[in-house]
Amino acid sequence: MQVAKTVKDINNWVRHTKESGRSIGLVPTMGFLHEGHLSLVEAAKAENDLVVMSIFVNPAQFGPNEDFERYPRDFERDSQLAEKAGVDMIFAPSAEEMYPRESPITMGAGTLANVLCGKSRPGHFDGVLKVVTKLFHLVQPDSAYFGQKDAQQLAIVESLVQDFNFPLRICRVDTVREQDGLAKSSRNVYLSETERAEAPKLYQALQQGAAAAREGKDPVPEMARLIQSETSGTIDYIELLSYPDLNEAPDGQAILALAVQFQKARLIDNIIFTLKEN
Amino acid sequence: MQVAKTVKDINNWVRHTKESGRSIGLVPTMGFLHEGHLSLVEAAKAENDLVVMSIFVNPAQFGPNEDFERYPRDFERDSQLAEKAGVDMIFAPSAEEMYPRESPITMGAGTLANVLCGKSRPGHFDGVLKVVTKLFHLVQPDSAYFGQKDAQQLAIVESLVQDFNFPLRICRVDTVREQDGLAKSSRNVYLSETERAEAPKLYQALQQGAAAAREGKDPVPEMARLIQSETSGTIDYIELLSYPDLNEAPDGQAILALAVQFQKARLIDNIIFTLKEN
Repeated sequence: MQVAKTVKDINNWVRHTKESGRSIGLVPTMGFLHEGHLSLVEAAKAENDLVVMSIFVNPAQFGPNEDFERYPRDFERDSQLAEKAGVDMIFAPSAEEMYPRESPITMGAGTLANVLCGKSRPGHFDGVLKVVTKLFHLVQPDSAYFGQKDAQQLAIVESLVQDFNFPLRICRVDTVREQDGLAKSSRNVYLSETERAEAPKLYQALQQGAAAAREGKDPVPEMARLIQSETSGTIDYIELLSYPDLNEAPDGQAILALAVQFQKARLIDNIIFTLKEN
Repeated sequence: MQVAKTVKDINNWVRHTKESGRSIGLVPTMGFLHEGHLSLVEAAKAENDLVVMSIFVNPAQFGPNEDFERYPRDFERDSQLAEKAGVDMIFAPSAEEMYPRESPITMGAGTLANVLCGKSRPGHFDGVLKVVTKLFHLVQPDSAYFGQKDAQQLAIVESLVQDFNFPLRICRVDTVREQDGLAKSSRNVYLSETERAEAPKLYQALQQGAAAAREGKDPVPEMARLIQSETSGTIDYIELLSYPDLNEAPDGQAILALAVQFQKARLIDNIIFTLKEN
């Protein structure tokens, strides 16, 4: 496994790989890898000659009061896990390497950022668009792999690729869960023991809510009651939207998503499912 | 010479070309070709195996009161000129092909659009960023050729490519002029006979202004006097800025640029030069 830490190094590797005609799968991450990331690598390996994993905690997608500084980092552990999973190249640039100057040019997620996590994280998805665009240009993958857990990010990246004609394919990979249903997340390490025991209720609430929505009921009040009574978390949102357009009043493909703030960790989860036609 | 009118057709051609290892030079145009465009083709031919010319009057870069509808179009003449100049592929999509839906995702030129033409054409450069990004993704050129005449566009595209790591090179090509100095432009056909006789004064004013600026003088008042007294046009702007950052108070590389509105044509022109260090 190779490691590139500069734009120049990844450029050289990509040029060489392209010339040899081999396909590239990209797994973009912020590091602190867990099984969710490794399932992305597995999907990428199955479909490409070579797999690049980017590890970059992107300052552009953290708000001023968010956890950029204390976002967990462990490059040694990450590179061991990546190598074992079969990653061929880690691209791990510094912030200075990715943002040598503040660009006057901006990208905006528009209405796609007015729902779900976008409401409470202003600018977050604009920062995601910027870094994803840069990574796509630097790595020039044939396919890029995103987890369904970050469903709003996935929907926005799908729009980006489609509307701006990026020459690559976005692959959605199912959320990996603990045995008790909790979605794997780098932020789970911040849960207290009690919170960790409560956290599976989020996925249970989603499952019950999806069943209710399929029967034509509004799933939100019952889900809110369950989470409020059985966890110590504070609900940030519970929303039922169309997917991937993230409009209200869904028909057909829908997403039921939630965010719950625990003491030191804000957890998100979702289910994408098909609503019965009424 | 081949012609692609759909995204699918250009995708196929580009994939085939990339697989064969040949380099691609892109000349983006809005058609109604003149010698300025053909000089871009000439530069592209000298440096690439194959040359793609895009011909697309991009609705996203015209304001509601601008000349999108009556912008001159003549595809037959354009394709003859392009073929004679040695273009290998014309990409001429419809607006529906380029914009099948209104994307919620936006690009913004930020402060780079607050000067020169950006001031009087709100949204214009945002639309340029969008179409150029799409064309770069569709054609995947090794190099793309832009004329210095549209200097603000050139500066913004250079920032775009640099800040977002597009895997290509931007080549600046000198403005092509009529014998009397008037910069070639598709919009010159809208000049009346009298206006056409006056129009070379714009370049004369730029030359005099650049000389004055090199001597440390403010070039604008004298240029304004010249244009007001010797043409029937109305000055939109005359600005001296740093290049390519387009900041005020230039030192080193500078651009002196102007826009003058005639009855049916708004003409722009500029000189890029080095200011003496003070």
